[in-house]
Amino acid sequence: MEKSARVMQTLFGSFANPNVISFAGGSPAPACLPIEEVHDIMDKVMTREGRGVEALQYNRPQGIPDLRQTICDTLLAPKGVQADPDDVVVVSGGLETMNLVCQLFIEPGDVILVESPTFMHCVEIFDMFQARCVPCQMDDHGLVMEDVEEKIRQYHPKMIYTVPTFQNPTGKTLPADRRRRLAEMGSAYDVIVLEDDPYRDIRYSGEDLAPIKTYDTTGNTILASSFSKIFSPGVRLGYVYAKHDYIRKICDIKTATNSHSSLLAEVACAEFFKQGLYPAHHKKICDIYRTQRDAMVLALDRYMPEGTRHTNPDGGFFMWVQLPGGIDTTDMLVEAARDYHVAYVAGRGFYVEGGDTGKDELRLSFSGVEPPQIEEGMRRLGSLVQSWLP
Amino acid sequence: MEKSARVMQTLFGSFANPNVISFAGGSPAPACLPIEEVHDIMDKVMTREGRGVEALQYNRPQGIPDLRQTICDTLLAPKGVQADPDDVVVVSGGLETMNLVCQLFIEPGDVILVESPTFMHCVEIFDMFQARCVPCQMDDHGLVMEDVEEKIRQYHPKMIYTVPTFQNPTGKTLPADRRRRLAEMGSAYDVIVLEDDPYRDIRYSGEDLAPIKTYDTTGNTILASSFSKIFSPGVRLGYVYAKHDYIRKICDIKTATNSHSSLLAEVACAEFFKQGLYPAHHKKICDIYRTQRDAMVLALDRYMPEGTRHTNPDGGFFMWVQLPGGIDTTDMLVEAARDYHVAYVAGRGFYVEGGDTGKDELRLSFSGVEPPQIEEGMRRLGSLVQSWLP
Repeated sequence: MEKSARVMQTLFGSFANPNVISFAGGSPAPACLPIEEVHDIMDKVMTREGRGVEALQYNRPQGIPDLRQTICDTLLAPKGVQADPDDVVVVSGGLETMNLVCQLFIEPGDVILVESPTFMHCVEIFDMFQARCVPCQMDDHGLVMEDVEEKIRQYHPKMIYTVPTFQNPTGKTLPADRRRRLAEMGSAYDVIVLEDDPYRDIRYSGEDLAPIKTYDTTGNTILASSFSKIFSPGVRLGYVYAKHDYIRKICDIKTATNSHSSLLAEVACAEFFKQGLYPAHHKKICDIYRTQRDAMVLALDRYMPEGTRHTNPDGGFFMWVQLPGGIDTTDMLVEAARDYHVAYVAGRGFYVEGGDTGKDELRLSFSGVEPPQIEEGMRRLGSLVQSWLP
Repeated sequence: MEKSARVMQTLFGSFANPNVISFAGGSPAPACLPIEEVHDIMDKVMTREGRGVEALQYNRPQGIPDLRQTICDTLLAPKGVQADPDDVVVVSGGLETMNLVCQLFIEPGDVILVESPTFMHCVEIFDMFQARCVPCQMDDHGLVMEDVEEKIRQYHPKMIYTVPTFQNPTGKTLPADRRRRLAEMGSAYDVIVLEDDPYRDIRYSGEDLAPIKTYDTTGNTILASSFSKIFSPGVRLGYVYAKHDYIRKICDIKTATNSHSSLLAEVACAEFFKQGLYPAHHKKICDIYRTQRDAMVLALDRYMPEGTRHTNPDGGFFMWVQLPGGIDTTDMLVEAARDYHVAYVAGRGFYVEGGDTGKDELRLSFSGVEPPQIEEGMRRLGSLVQSWLP
């Protein structure tokens, strides 16, 4: 009687046995949650004379104006995106954009090009809308443009889904020339380029890159991002910037999804930026995550056997590892959690290809684990891997 | 290229010209928003030792346990619904349940039986999922069971959508015997009965009625409700209670919609009940709304011409009016807003039948207007109607 909704919930893999040091989740470090800031904001503005009525009453679907203004001025303009607040919609977390965009564009059987490996929670959304996901090759710098163009010609996709900056799961970042090329292909072939960019502001080294959207001259690129990494995932806020015609339709679909996002959350988030708390918070969390990334790179090189390959991300939450000796990371996971009390996500889970693709790979998240635990967790993982070598 | 999403936004009709006394919206009275309570709750719990991490971090899709426990103990058990918190999902406002349930059950072309008149914002959701809405007759006591059964036999619907208590737009309430019969028909014909019951606790007179769900023996009835009327619409929180198999699937779809609802909002709402603030708040808002309902009934009878028919709701936010003399309420609306500075929603907008159905009817909301404005607004509406009589 019901339609199928194949949805894994590995996102929540980090809420496991407390003895396990988990590199599986993608949650922010608790120290990076602005609890004291939100407490003070609520104390200031949650009054009848202040923003109390605004936070608790109904409102329009697009999101409160000062939050949309902040998105344009503080988060988009510095990256070279000149956006009008009327062309921005506040959504209930970054994932909701994928749902709204699918509701707008995707008919059963439509093809969506995805990265290989890709962020599977979005593939679950694409599956729910009965899209067919076709993987595109990645090299050390992300999507390979020649393969994307070949797949466009072969499959006539409705959409290309990419996480261009510090990609989940690999941590890879698409260089400027490929960003330009991808936007151009979206226009040339009239394909939607869905740019999912929640990690953009979580950079620890290297130079900022302009979003794909800055190279878009036809409106084929849709830019999605989130407040989950820079403010809080629990409040569930994100945003989408696209050409006005799409934004108008996305507002209608948002209305028919949940009317609007939580205004208590929107007011808290808007005030966080308005009161000038973001710059200090941003520096603080980048320092914390940089230290954790460095600790993991160090521990990886110290404890993992020769022949192990891994990415060195300039930002974000994740590193991608390929093990030597053809070790099957899915088989090894049971022993990892049970005997070595360390967790990761096996590579297979990030490939739409299925089968043995990614069998010897795994994703490590350093975002939620402090350096001493990273050191200890990697020591455990290292000795486990050693014991699995042929 | 895009799919159609026909969505009106009359829900937001109340944000109009401030000189206009608007009976058009369905927003709570500002005095009924628990601003001071939420301020104090945030001050107490938004700390690192308290519930700060819980409110700002990721969590599972189903909703925080103490909120689901409160829903069962405080909101469902007193109405005769014995629910297990594991069979409840917290959603982002009442409307989201309709979206999630459509995503689970509705294929393009499926028939959904709706009330005539009905809550059009849900019809917009049903339209988005390309369902075909078939109206069923209502009398003074709501849906006419004989007509519902005839339509079930004729159209083999996937679902029946009803607002059984203080219905939007009419304020009508379905009596116990019809509730039992509707649940029985859902089981007998294997049709989903989607019971949308957000006004249940906003009763000013008469006896409580058990939800349709209490008569359901097969799991065909799905109970949806909202915190928008009893706590705050801005926080966007609601809940759905159904049999476990459906709840598990709704959790998966919720994950693929927006991961989970705003935990800042969930924590605020859970603490509102946990700290025992609901009973006093509930009495306060029912007293305010009762006074406004009484003022509107009085003013209606005083100012509207002979031959005007209207409902006398025992609760909720709305009254339904039929004018004498075949006055077209859609035509009259322009003059109402422009010259008489009074607003309502014309009857046509609530009928899926289209055409002239409901042409001489209108919906009045008394929820957001204080008694003196109700008196003045109805005086204006009365003289306008007088001037339109043949």
